[in-house]
Parts: sequence; structure tokens; C-alpha cells
Amino acid sequence: MSARRYLEDFAVGEIIRGGALRVEPAAIKEFAAKFDPQVFHLDEEAAKDTFFDGLAASGWHTAAMTMRLIVETLPLAGGVIGAGGTIAWPKPLRPGTTLSVAIEILEIRPSRSRPERGMLKMKCTTHEDSGEVVQTLVADLVVPRRPG
Amino acid sequence: MSARRYLEDFAVGEIIRGGALRVEPAAIKEFAAKFDPQVFHLDEEAAKDTFFDGLAASGWHTAAMTMRLIVETLPLAGGVIGAGGTIAWPKPLRPGTTLSVAIEILEIRPSRSRPERGMLKMKCTTHEDSGEVVQTLVADLVVPRRPG
Repeated sequence: MSARRYLEDFAVGEIIRGGALRVEPAAIKEFAAKFDPQVFHLDEEAAKDTFFDGLAASGWHTAAMTMRLIVETLPLAGGVIGAGGTIAWPKPLRPGTTLSVAIEILEIRPSRSRPERGMLKMKCTTHEDSGEVVQTLVADLVVPRRPG
Repeated sequence: MSARRYLEDFAVGEIIRGGALRVEPAAIKEFAAKFDPQVFHLDEEAAKDTFFDGLAASGWHTAAMTMRLIVETLPLAGGVIGAGGTIAWPKPLRPGTTLSVAIEILEIRPSRSRPERGMLKMKCTTHEDSGEVVQTLVADLVVPRRPG
């Protein structure tokens, strides 16, 4: 957070890149055991007979790892605070890859009712080390305006 | 999975309810330390001076806990497999409450190219024990059709 950024510090079209985060099979299974206990996220052998044809991370695990990368990549004044968004997982995330993110600024909207803040719409694309996209997230973030 | 359901076994407008899942402060902090390490998810005292005015769960933690409840509530043949969706967090989730879900079936669409499966669009609403909504998720699930 050494150079925290306010709403005024972004430009539409700007792309900010960050990462890396290694995806280990143990982490996939640990997340799944807690939050998404289904065989294709828990057991390599048993996963072969499922829709996924092998072990794959829970989409919500991909989302959580992506959030980690966003927090490390976007030094927002006030922190990374999302109101919601639209998420898609175009392909299964397999263990043994390393994730990175590309965050594109889509819209910057100062609030009419709250002069001290605004909304930043961003598209965060989560890539494997092969370059393939495992998640897209378009989200609205609450971002403070520069004081004074 | 004792009474697994296929695409044909659902009706538009049907609502399926499930839960409960208790939200403890330690779980909020543990998830945040791993995936969303920001002060308002990590420390009660420091969180008071933030946007959230106190400790609140990461939205992705709410999503992950909701997935746990969906997996326990929807006995889908083939498992609960999502392609993506739209998520919103209308209010902060505080520790000390118990979550439950209400899953409404919005659309049932057999696949044209894949006769063995189809898409189920659902809206999952995550409630606190007070009844207040902490998350809505509209998602498309891949669901097998009944064989034969």
C-alpha cells in the first residue's frame, strides 16, 4: 500500500498486471473439503469418471485466489471493496499451473450522492502460465476520491 | 446424493431451501488471511476505522460458504457444476450469524448440441438468521438429462 491510488488516479483502458500464484493439488483439495466437497475437486482418480475428466479447482477457489492477486496488484486507497460482479470460468483450472491477473479499467464513475467516493468498473482476467484464461470477472469496486 | 435429480426433475419457479452454516469470526479471519488479506476482514478493532465499520466476511468467503450450502441442498446428478454467474453482496456479512440458502429455478434449457445434458439457471439467495440477504447469485449449472 505504499502508493495507494484514488479514483482520480485511474484511466479508462489502463491495464494493470500482477501475479504469480502457484496452484497445488493439496490446496485444491483443502479448499474443496471446506467449501465445495465434490469428487472432481477432491480426488484425482475418482475425478477421471466425471464431467471434468480429472482433478479441477472449484470455481470459487479460482475466485478466491484471484482476489488474493487483485489485493496484491491494485493498491487502492480504502482497500479492494466489491459490490458484486459477473464471473465466468471458461475452462477447468488444473493443478500445477501458476496464476496471474490482468485488470482492465472499464469505467470510472464519481458518485452523485457521495462526493467522497465513486465506482470503478474493472475486468479481471485470470490466466494460467500457458496464457489460457480460467476466469473472467467484471466487478464494480467502491473507491475513495482524493481528499481535498 | 440418495435422490439425485436430473434436468427433467426440476420445474421453473420451484424453490429449494437449505442450511444452516454458522459464521464464526475465526473462520472469517482464516479465509481472509489466505485469500483476501485486508484489515476489515482480519481484525475487529482495526476494521472499525474502515468502510465496513467493523469485521465483515470477504464476499468470496460468503460465496464459498454459499457453495457449501448449495452442494448440500441440491442433489444434482453429476454434481453442482457452474459455468459462471452474476453475484452481488447487498450488505456486509458479520460474524455470529447462521447462513441458509433459497434456490429458485429460473430456467431449464436442454442443450441442442448435447442431448445428454442441459442448463439450469438458478437464483441462490443467501440469508442471515435475521432473514437479511447477504448475497444473491444467478448462475447457470450444467445438469445431465435422465438417461434412456
